[in-house]
Amino acid sequence: MSHDVRTRLSAIRREFHRHPEPSWCEIQTTARIVEELSRIGVDRVAIGRDALASDHRMAVPSEETLAEWHDRAAAAGVDDDVLAATADGHTGCVAVVELGEGPTVGLRVDMDAVSMVESDEPGHRPADEGFRSETAGYMHACGHDAHAAIGLGVVEAVKASDFSGTFKCFFQPAEEVAGGGKPMAESGHVDDVEYLFACHLGLGYPTGTVVASATEPLAMAHLTATFEGAAAHAGKDPSGGTNAMQAMATGVQNAYGIARHGDGMTRVNFGRVAGGSASNVIAEEITLDGEVRGETTALMEYTRSELERILYAAAEVHGCDVVIRRISESIRVDSDPVLGALVADVARGVDGVDSVVPEAPLGASEDVTFLMKHVHDRGGRAAYVIVGGDHPTSHQTPTFDVDERSLGVAVELLSSAIVNVGANRP
Amino acid sequence: MSHDVRTRLSAIRREFHRHPEPSWCEIQTTARIVEELSRIGVDRVAIGRDALASDHRMAVPSEETLAEWHDRAAAAGVDDDVLAATADGHTGCVAVVELGEGPTVGLRVDMDAVSMVESDEPGHRPADEGFRSETAGYMHACGHDAHAAIGLGVVEAVKASDFSGTFKCFFQPAEEVAGGGKPMAESGHVDDVEYLFACHLGLGYPTGTVVASATEPLAMAHLTATFEGAAAHAGKDPSGGTNAMQAMATGVQNAYGIARHGDGMTRVNFGRVAGGSASNVIAEEITLDGEVRGETTALMEYTRSELERILYAAAEVHGCDVVIRRISESIRVDSDPVLGALVADVARGVDGVDSVVPEAPLGASEDVTFLMKHVHDRGGRAAYVIVGGDHPTSHQTPTFDVDERSLGVAVELLSSAIVNVGANRP
Amino acid sequence: MSHDVRTRLSAIRREFHRHPEPSWCEIQTTARIVEELSRIGVDRVAIGRDALASDHRMAVPSEETLAEWHDRAAAAGVDDDVLAATADGHTGCVAVVELGEGPTVGLRVDMDAVSMVESDEPGHRPADEGFRSETAGYMHACGHDAHAAIGLGVVEAVKASDFSGTFKCFFQPAEEVAGGGKPMAESGHVDDVEYLFACHLGLGYPTGTVVASATEPLAMAHLTATFEGAAAHAGKDPSGGTNAMQAMATGVQNAYGIARHGDGMTRVNFGRVAGGSASNVIAEEITLDGEVRGETTALMEYTRSELERILYAAAEVHGCDVVIRRISESIRVDSDPVLGALVADVARGVDGVDSVVPEAPLGASEDVTFLMKHVHDRGGRAAYVIVGGDHPTSHQTPTFDVDERSLGVAVELLSSAIVNVGANRP
Amino acid sequence: MSHDVRTRLSAIRREFHRHPEPSWCEIQTTARIVEELSRIGVDRVAIGRDALASDHRMAVPSEETLAEWHDRAAAAGVDDDVLAATADGHTGCVAVVELGEGPTVGLRVDMDAVSMVESDEPGHRPADEGFRSETAGYMHACGHDAHAAIGLGVVEAVKASDFSGTFKCFFQPAEEVAGGGKPMAESGHVDDVEYLFACHLGLGYPTGTVVASATEPLAMAHLTATFEGAAAHAGKDPSGGTNAMQAMATGVQNAYGIARHGDGMTRVNFGRVAGGSASNVIAEEITLDGEVRGETTALMEYTRSELERILYAAAEVHGCDVVIRRISESIRVDSDPVLGALVADVARGVDGVDSVVPEAPLGASEDVTFLMKHVHDRGGRAAYVIVGGDHPTSHQTPTFDVDERSLGVAVELLSSAIVNVGANRP
Repeated sequence: MSHDVRTRLSAIRREFHRHPEPSWCEIQTTARIVEELSRIGVDRVAIGRDALASDHRMAVPSEETLAEWHDRAAAAGVDDDVLAATADGHTGCVAVVELGEGPTVGLRVDMDAVSMVESDEPGHRPADEGFRSETAGYMHACGHDAHAAIGLGVVEAVKASDFSGTFKCFFQPAEEVAGGGKPMAESGHVDDVEYLFACHLGLGYPTGTVVASATEPLAMAHLTATFEGAAAHAGKDPSGGTNAMQAMATGVQNAYGIARHGDGMTRVNFGRVAGGSASNVIAEEITLDGEVRGETTALMEYTRSELERILYAAAEVHGCDVVIRRISESIRVDSDPVLGALVADVARGVDGVDSVVPEAPLGASEDVTFLMKHVHDRGGRAAYVIVGGDHPTSHQTPTFDVDERSLGVAVELLSSAIVNVGANRP
Repeated sequence: MSHDVRTRLSAIRREFHRHPEPSWCEIQTTARIVEELSRIGVDRVAIGRDALASDHRMAVPSEETLAEWHDRAAAAGVDDDVLAATADGHTGCVAVVELGEGPTVGLRVDMDAVSMVESDEPGHRPADEGFRSETAGYMHACGHDAHAAIGLGVVEAVKASDFSGTFKCFFQPAEEVAGGGKPMAESGHVDDVEYLFACHLGLGYPTGTVVASATEPLAMAHLTATFEGAAAHAGKDPSGGTNAMQAMATGVQNAYGIARHGDGMTRVNFGRVAGGSASNVIAEEITLDGEVRGETTALMEYTRSELERILYAAAEVHGCDVVIRRISESIRVDSDPVLGALVADVARGVDGVDSVVPEAPLGASEDVTFLMKHVHDRGGRAAYVIVGGDHPTSHQTPTFDVDERSLGVAVELLSSAIVNVGANRP
Repeated sequence: MSHDVRTRLSAIRREFHRHPEPSWCEIQTTARIVEELSRIGVDRVAIGRDALASDHRMAVPSEETLAEWHDRAAAAGVDDDVLAATADGHTGCVAVVELGEGPTVGLRVDMDAVSMVESDEPGHRPADEGFRSETAGYMHACGHDAHAAIGLGVVEAVKASDFSGTFKCFFQPAEEVAGGGKPMAESGHVDDVEYLFACHLGLGYPTGTVVASATEPLAMAHLTATFEGAAAHAGKDPSGGTNAMQAMATGVQNAYGIARHGDGMTRVNFGRVAGGSASNVIAEEITLDGEVRGETTALMEYTRSELERILYAAAEVHGCDVVIRRISESIRVDSDPVLGALVADVARGVDGVDSVVPEAPLGASEDVTFLMKHVHDRGGRAAYVIVGGDHPTSHQTPTFDVDERSLGVAVELLSSAIVNVGANRP
Repeated sequence: MSHDVRTRLSAIRREFHRHPEPSWCEIQTTARIVEELSRIGVDRVAIGRDALASDHRMAVPSEETLAEWHDRAAAAGVDDDVLAATADGHTGCVAVVELGEGPTVGLRVDMDAVSMVESDEPGHRPADEGFRSETAGYMHACGHDAHAAIGLGVVEAVKASDFSGTFKCFFQPAEEVAGGGKPMAESGHVDDVEYLFACHLGLGYPTGTVVASATEPLAMAHLTATFEGAAAHAGKDPSGGTNAMQAMATGVQNAYGIARHGDGMTRVNFGRVAGGSASNVIAEEITLDGEVRGETTALMEYTRSELERILYAAAEVHGCDVVIRRISESIRVDSDPVLGALVADVARGVDGVDSVVPEAPLGASEDVTFLMKHVHDRGGRAAYVIVGGDHPTSHQTPTFDVDERSLGVAVELLSSAIVNVGANRP
């Protein structure tokens, strides 16, 4: 890969890094991608609402939040077409490059940031080199800035290659909240994809290592539970209300006691809680924010089903109601072994790769599994690839950064694999 | 009171003490009372089934237990008529003495013992003087032996007095389990009672003290809850059953958290638990034994209602069922103040009484309240009287004993009050 | 009372109503009181720090909050002397009027508002007549605006009366949070007070009714508990942290299960909870906001002691720490019966009083009990008086308002009682 | 294998089946084994105390229980030497056969029964054919009767073979309670064993199938927890005691909430509970019976350590104490792959074997792992072999039975493997 290409990849990644946008609010990011695709020259781009099955979106923020980010994007000069296409929580896009006879091959990358204050300490490269987040309270702490840049790099590389077939690049929004995979899978754009790649940088693997086939992503479901009681004065009329605090505590205590399952690993957690008004008032409303996971989709569903029964009954224990909101979910789909083997073979020939792990567990949840399942269900093959990249601190920390050398490795690996698939139809 | 009468009271009380029988099993006790009533000569005696509204009985033990005590009584020589009348858990009797024109006045005494091993240590008078319990594992540890003797003493004293009217003495079974008051109240025998007395010895008051009017007995309900789950191997198939252990723990935790009530005092307790089969098996069935109380009947019912909702929902939290059995209950009824004042007046003239407390809280539960309510509901008056009596240790301990001097005080006080009521119809 | 006086009372009360300030932030209120006392002409005024034992203050807000209200007061034109005297959370004042030989008699009134948005609906008189709160988010919803006005009215009335002795009026801050009573009690100003009155409007009694002697205020303690765990990824490393969510739930469940006490009524409540960061992270820190109460100070302390042990052990159950902060407390002190009887006598002669209740339970907590105890401990007498006053909705609601006719009743009743005490030294 | 041998194996197995004895009480069983070993003629037998490191025994029953089974055995005619050697809970034996130069090879079999009433329904072969349990309430429901018979069969077969070396057969007591493996491992008899086999029939595999190498037994620990509070009358003095019922419930609730572990599977269960005295008494003492398991020994120890901290703190939540008794435990040790491969090879040549599974998870806990670890620690090899055998219903059910054809398969497989090992020293 030429020095110029590497430089351009870094530059665009840093641009994304400076302008992080949270899930379903990636308007400037989408606009910048569309602009770059136009520079590269692709055959078609479906933007926002055209790239998504709107009803399948999950974890969409409030209208106020969407409006706020829309206004920011407008103020930043995003043009009206993109503003219109991405309105009301419809971000992301699908780029299509048609290069003659051959299979339809896809690549999915993600693009959203998280709510976190980025470090401004010396030694944190984005701070030192001037591309730290310019949007207070938000940060690319999981490398999706790099993933979006890689997507653009692969489009450009495939276009310049001798690939024969159709290439589609899915710039998926809202991965962090497991909200964008399902609507993109159901958009119609994946229906004809015969081979699909997905990619993640880092994940604990150093620069130079490639995991050709990531397996066993955890199925996950995110939900909130709002316990609704009735207030009363705790001193004068302690039995006059119904106590959402006790209902919540009963829910939490028993949720963690969901029976482990003989078929494999499960998880349950409540990570946030808030509610009530004052120390001397029986709490009227308390909301828990939690999730369940499972080694398989069935195990996740077992745990969610148990959890929901527990929460409803815990409310009943204290005469309260509970409103459970299913925010989002992702399923378990493993990489196709044949496509994984192909990636491993290709990886061994990529400049900068010094170690190839044929297969390893992902150990996390991912909503690209909806796209992978869509492909597998139609007889296709999908592989999830980890491109190692040193990171100074863990993902989702204020001093996270990616080793930009991994961008070039990823672009070369993925574009080579795409060309290979086009030629060999494994 | 003559020395002879005092001696006879002690002798019969010690006979009862040697032969304790638990609730609904007081067959020998009933037979001995009937025998003594025959010696005294009363006009009518309704025994067992004839003295009770059978369907209103509560806390009746198993058929096996009833049969066992029936067999003991038969072996002890109880005659066939009493055996037949008391069969299947129908103990106690009502004695009637008709003495001309005048009101119908009643006295209720109780007669059952508790499950406790009586002390055989030196210094425990029943052991020292040879009238310790001869029935292993049972004991008169609450003075009901003395109460039954007092009942007989009052019958004899009233018969010998110038009382004008009808006198009924209610020898009530199953007070310890709050099971006998209701069926005796509903038996018909109380319907014409215009004045009713009830009496308890001791309760922390010394010999010579009389509480003329005990008030505020706690309303109480006794219940059991059996959680029913499904067993499974805890190692191989931890989610294969439904866990009665977790359901029980959820029930207990939340039961004690029932909201205190602004209207007054409530209580809740689970005092026994048992169930499950082995450490490596998900528990299939666990039973809790508990009670609720309230300063008023309504507060007891509030607490029971909350408890029952909690237990049903706690079972549901863990996918189990729960069977709640209402074992027995008692209500709150306070002494009538007019009749209480009469008792106080009479008490001041009784030999051996050196202190009269006009009114004091009972601080316990009592099922004579069903009889008292029956009288009050028909326009009558009822009073609960405490006759002080030193007791070396607390009620319901293995070294409990009554000061027999209090028997004579009680007989004189109650018979005098009855005569007074007959004359004055307050 | 003259029409002019009534009008002035209403006017100053409405001024206070328009400028509500929360506990320990009553700077404008203090300044307005000082200004009015100057108009009336009193012998001495101790302001802020001079009126309080600083170290005994409880529930003082953060420095930021104090600074914010200081700045508001400065902007509103409060003069520098009062700003200096009230700095850093030292509000309120004590006014002294010396009128010759005789006892020292005190009156305590309070002055703080609460955090609540006042109604702007038609029908709410403060809105209709233009004296609704001008400070967004704060409101006099408990009548302390009227209490402060009554204090000024009584100072003026006593000064104009034939009272002989020394009169002190305690304008106490921070009653709503039970924070100001203790430091005023310990300030030295109460040491020589032989008779003390306290007063509350409304509390469910209609205009024209007076409760001469309120008794049985609940002892109360307010506390917060912050559970401190360690975060970890709930999917990848569920055992890697320590779970503040589970610790909190264990604390809540068991707190409500604190054993009821045989000596009397107790209360426990957690009314607010907040903490944790995200659904997929083991919660690191969660704070509960709660209180305990008791029919007596000892019962409150029993409950607090149980609660604290439970919270520490609940943290330990989950390997967490907990930091418990005792925010504030109040004790139980009943009105002196002799002084109460005097108030009842006086009340029967007051214009506008049509019903006098000699004694009734307060049914709430009050930190004037610290001043009352200080007086009682030195052989003096203190009485808590309720002056009935219609209120359209309950205290602490957005449409609360006082019937201003009750201001005149209160001023006449209290000043007459003070004069009477001066003359008769009961 | 000759028809006569098969017949003898069945006969001796049926004898064991008729006389089931629970863990540490296998006195008649040991005596019968010793008698049979004498018939076969072995070089040495270490019985009971001589076969065990006494201090390492776990889960030994009470002296009363031991004495009761000792008396039964004496009554059944067990001779005095065996009675003396097995006294006080020292059952089992080790038989040694010396056959010249060669390695020391061991086989471990178990011999205890469980507490269960055996079916007497038609269709249950032991009932139909007259070898149903003659000891009421106990039953060989896990096939250890067959295992002991197999042990004897292998001793006889090895003695008759051309095996060269030393063969030791370990008749281990108390496997059901995980109590006998550790003391036999530490007895010294295993110190020179270079190759060790263990064997189990059935486990869901049909007759004709052999699992050559069972892996991943769960590490397990069994414990009891006795919560000790103080009794008080729940109505009169609800705060007078300390409540073991609430402490127990807090322990149970939080035990099931022990965090799942990222390194693998864990289990926790309380399967039995009992305690308290009466519904109206604060519970004084309650005992839980439970266990933890882990995919590895470290995971079991993590879970046990968490559980113990939770139980101690749960007691503290309610001011109680808790006494935790570690009853027994087993560790995880996997079969040696080399020895497993040898078994697979041999199995393919055994008459009656139609399917060989090279390796499969055991899915249960086993205390032979202590012996296996002892061998592995000294550089030896150990393999756990499952010999399939149809069983009409699950292990540990009243209608369990073994297919006796599997006895011959097991004897031939194990003796062939032992001969092979002697020859080849893998």
